[in-house]
Amino acid sequence: MSLIVQKYGGTSVGSPDRIRNVARRVAKFRAQGHDIVVVVSAMSGETNRLISLAKEIQAQPDPRELDVMVSTGEQVTVALLSMALMELGVRAKSYTGGQVRVLTDSAYTKARILSIDEGNIRRDLESGHVVVVAGFQGVDMEGNITTLGRGGSDTTGVALAAALKADECQIYTDVDGVYTTDPRIEPKARKLKSITFEEMLEMASLGSKVLQIRSVEFAGKYRVRLRVLSSFEEEGEGTLITFEEEGDMEQPIISGIAFNRDEAKITVRGVPDKPGIAYQILGPVADANIEVDMIIQNVGEEGQTDFSFTVHKNDFEKALAILKGIQPHLEAKDVIGDEGIAKVSVVGVGMRSHVGVASQMFRTLAEEGINIQMISTSEIKISVVIDEKYLELAVRVLHKAFGLDREV
Amino acid sequence: MSLIVQKYGGTSVGSPDRIRNVARRVAKFRAQGHDIVVVVSAMSGETNRLISLAKEIQAQPDPRELDVMVSTGEQVTVALLSMALMELGVRAKSYTGGQVRVLTDSAYTKARILSIDEGNIRRDLESGHVVVVAGFQGVDMEGNITTLGRGGSDTTGVALAAALKADECQIYTDVDGVYTTDPRIEPKARKLKSITFEEMLEMASLGSKVLQIRSVEFAGKYRVRLRVLSSFEEEGEGTLITFEEEGDMEQPIISGIAFNRDEAKITVRGVPDKPGIAYQILGPVADANIEVDMIIQNVGEEGQTDFSFTVHKNDFEKALAILKGIQPHLEAKDVIGDEGIAKVSVVGVGMRSHVGVASQMFRTLAEEGINIQMISTSEIKISVVIDEKYLELAVRVLHKAFGLDREV
Repeated sequence: MSLIVQKYGGTSVGSPDRIRNVARRVAKFRAQGHDIVVVVSAMSGETNRLISLAKEIQAQPDPRELDVMVSTGEQVTVALLSMALMELGVRAKSYTGGQVRVLTDSAYTKARILSIDEGNIRRDLESGHVVVVAGFQGVDMEGNITTLGRGGSDTTGVALAAALKADECQIYTDVDGVYTTDPRIEPKARKLKSITFEEMLEMASLGSKVLQIRSVEFAGKYRVRLRVLSSFEEEGEGTLITFEEEGDMEQPIISGIAFNRDEAKITVRGVPDKPGIAYQILGPVADANIEVDMIIQNVGEEGQTDFSFTVHKNDFEKALAILKGIQPHLEAKDVIGDEGIAKVSVVGVGMRSHVGVASQMFRTLAEEGINIQMISTSEIKISVVIDEKYLELAVRVLHKAFGLDREV
Repeated sequence: MSLIVQKYGGTSVGSPDRIRNVARRVAKFRAQGHDIVVVVSAMSGETNRLISLAKEIQAQPDPRELDVMVSTGEQVTVALLSMALMELGVRAKSYTGGQVRVLTDSAYTKARILSIDEGNIRRDLESGHVVVVAGFQGVDMEGNITTLGRGGSDTTGVALAAALKADECQIYTDVDGVYTTDPRIEPKARKLKSITFEEMLEMASLGSKVLQIRSVEFAGKYRVRLRVLSSFEEEGEGTLITFEEEGDMEQPIISGIAFNRDEAKITVRGVPDKPGIAYQILGPVADANIEVDMIIQNVGEEGQTDFSFTVHKNDFEKALAILKGIQPHLEAKDVIGDEGIAKVSVVGVGMRSHVGVASQMFRTLAEEGINIQMISTSEIKISVVIDEKYLELAVRVLHKAFGLDREV
């Protein structure tokens, strides 16, 4: 008998029939004697419907009020799933983020979880309830409703599993696990039985949209056993996220090819190459709560330097306007934006002990005539920014070059 | 400069355009220097949509979970109206019932307000905000979400006005005031410039669906100046609800004809006529949280009595089942239900000082061949239960008989 946190995404609860399916699955686990906490997203389409409605009133909806609206999506789902469980004779009780209380900071539409009060949930579990919690949402210190941003329900699930010291956090989604790359781009992509946390972190942040990055960080930090499964298949083990690099001889060098089309590039050209310039450029961007991903600074001519970075496309206009605004102050020659880019990454803990991954990657892309605009590396991944139109081609040739299409 | 609470119903906020209209009206009052608290209902149709969705999962939705769902309707509207106000340059901030905090008992789907914490609202008013509050909802002591039942947004408005000691509570609706009866049944019905609280109480409880009864009780108890207005007309004074009977010579005897088709009748026949029998019959009904309206006990033959009462049609099956269940215990001959009834009432504070209202009412109905099944009287109203099919006819002949079609 264990305590399991299960998270079901919007597609899994997209209709009354699907909600009943989820209820049946939860009831099956419950019948096996497990304690179950279920975290659910809004029904698929509902969040977008609410955002569209808000935009009919305000082109740029006020973030606080947008969170008040959007959080209703999950609130409806927790009630419906609780009802569906009761219909199966299972005691169930719903919680909003505020009722739990999932305490967050006040960064509306992209809040971060600060703490979770698990007392009420534990009490309900002890009295035999399945507890159904609204994902994606919380409240700040003043009781304002916040949301965690897209995909935040995963984070809620993992954070709850951590707070409750659950035995496993199962993320049910419309894919049946983590693949070597997106099968829609490379049909030969294979499902991985397990992947390390570090790799998953890189895969998630780089665009393999199986899990939200913050949920993986949380899981790693609190050592939550995390498993990705399909909500549409009755059987299947999914992909387990492991903590340590397996000592396996067969450990592949590269686990997968990740990619991301959601970023845009901003280049500040010809700024004086002096200490503090990076902070002068990125400080105002960070102050506007815009996350920056890749950052590259090239040595330029005559004491000048070129500075490039990438941001999410949603923040692109805002970031560009900020930099155009401070361009005179920076004494920069020019500020240039480019939305037509994509990022492709090879990820694998195996590359730590293998040289030559980078050169093989660059050679493979060069052979296809794909120009590399930016490069960034970490211990277990190499990312390049390329022209967006070459994205699919790059993913496919890299998948083959690193032997990911072969069974291991 | 005064503090005004304005309440807008579902039809008034039924679309983005209508929400913008409400925002313009609020902004106009704000520009005049008034402090404004706005209470809104869910967009028209939304509550029914949510209830239907719940019923797809559970034929009899769990009341706690139903309230979790249904309360999202107003939560969406407060956010949208706040956004619309900001678009007009008006500072605005939304509150859910729980955020206010509107404390209620735990009678899900028909909770009663126990207290309102007005501190946060007052702070926001002082800092120049229009405060937009979700009507119809609250939280109980344990933080569970509750709703006040249909029409509860009026009660929220009045309760807030009382807590804030507002100068006036304006209820905006799709009618422009209180009429002598429903104009859809009697086209000659006239709008009343004012009506007493007591009359309004009788009119509301008896089916003139302008204001919810509990809101009128609240207003009377806390002496809240209450005004009913149309949200679709720019001008107009609506109908003011007054505290004291005006000393006006022209005071009509009867202010209006109210009616109600939402009740059903249950008769317990042939129970022993002994002390405590009324409690034995109605105790179990009250325990099931079913409200009883008219109660009649007739003296019968041989130490037996017939006992009749009316309940809302929604509670009819439940109440009937309860009584059939205890019929042997009651030693009753029979328990009979009748859903084909309607209640018609003449209401007026003037009848206190005039005799003959009852006889005129009964004569008027008799002349049309309408049989009276039950009679109930109070100081300012006389109600009769008749066959539902005669309802419209009864309303029209009584409206004429008491001279309500003539201008005063």
